[in-house]
Amino acid sequence: MRILGIDPGSNATGFGVVEHFAGSVRHVAHGVLRPPRGGELAARLEYLHRSIAEVVAEHRPDVAAIEQVFVATNPRSALVLGQARGALLSALAAAGLTIREYSPSQIKQAVTGDGHASKRQVQTMVRRQLSLEHAPASDAADALAAAIRHAHAGRLEAVGVIPRGSRRRRLGGFVVNVRPSR
Amino acid sequence: MRILGIDPGSNATGFGVVEHFAGSVRHVAHGVLRPPRGGELAARLEYLHRSIAEVVAEHRPDVAAIEQVFVATNPRSALVLGQARGALLSALAAAGLTIREYSPSQIKQAVTGDGHASKRQVQTMVRRQLSLEHAPASDAADALAAAIRHAHAGRLEAVGVIPRGSRRRRLGGFVVNVRPSR
Repeated sequence: MRILGIDPGSNATGFGVVEHFAGSVRHVAHGVLRPPRGGELAARLEYLHRSIAEVVAEHRPDVAAIEQVFVATNPRSALVLGQARGALLSALAAAGLTIREYSPSQIKQAVTGDGHASKRQVQTMVRRQLSLEHAPASDAADALAAAIRHAHAGRLEAVGVIPRGSRRRRLGGFVVNVRPSR
Repeated sequence: MRILGIDPGSNATGFGVVEHFAGSVRHVAHGVLRPPRGGELAARLEYLHRSIAEVVAEHRPDVAAIEQVFVATNPRSALVLGQARGALLSALAAAGLTIREYSPSQIKQAVTGDGHASKRQVQTMVRRQLSLEHAPASDAADALAAAIRHAHAGRLEAVGVIPRGSRRRRLGGFVVNVRPSR
């Protein structure tokens, strides 16, 4: 299974592709999409939409993993982030991808064992787990971490820790996977 | 000149197309895009992206007018609205449209003479100005009002009230037209 992880941002959107097979996770590609600075808002959003579609066309992932937004930020940043997410998510859905969202702490936990790990720690552990020569840029590392988190979810489901088709809850438009409360 | 007005929303996005020629504004089309209820977030955004692209392909506007967001809302609504805007704006840019933003009060002022007009008043005046048999739904009326506002901007520019290529200011990612301060 190929997993595309995405860390959306209006100035820099990280992406990372991993392959998950027989319990191991292998690095395929990663990078950062940077809309041309100074361009008009709509042109920048179109750049994100088109570029992520190109990434999907090139690497043909089966599923996309993306960080869930807990809006602790102010409304202006939420709007700007929302616009980037809208441009990206509409492209992923157009490509027929299933999209799964994970909380920042679930993602950090999956790669570092610590839900409150620093960005640097995520970079270090992503590099180590995928046997990369250099640590990826922070946005790309976060994207790869989201992809790794999804690979783990599959494994946890497979061994029955998280039942397949576990309860799902709607939270302000987002579908969230909820572990059984017992 | 054909103008596409848009009133973005995640549950209902209004659109309206008018033709502006020789000082008069003529109605071409209007409607409301409603993503299927209960669908996944990304699928709903893809619906908006694809549907507005279809509207553009059918009516071939030269420019799009959209309401500028003054975020008085909470971060959650800003995120949700941002996602809809991101899906829509990326489609408009992909179609090569120029996009102009107008404040809510500029739009209301243009159709009712009152920057604080009610939704009902906007519906009534849009219907009257475009000689429609029925008042359009509120989202479509707001979209038509944005298009009418842009037609007026052209007229004001033509008579020199607003100089063509007037100063433009960046405001949190948005390009805003600013009238000369004298």
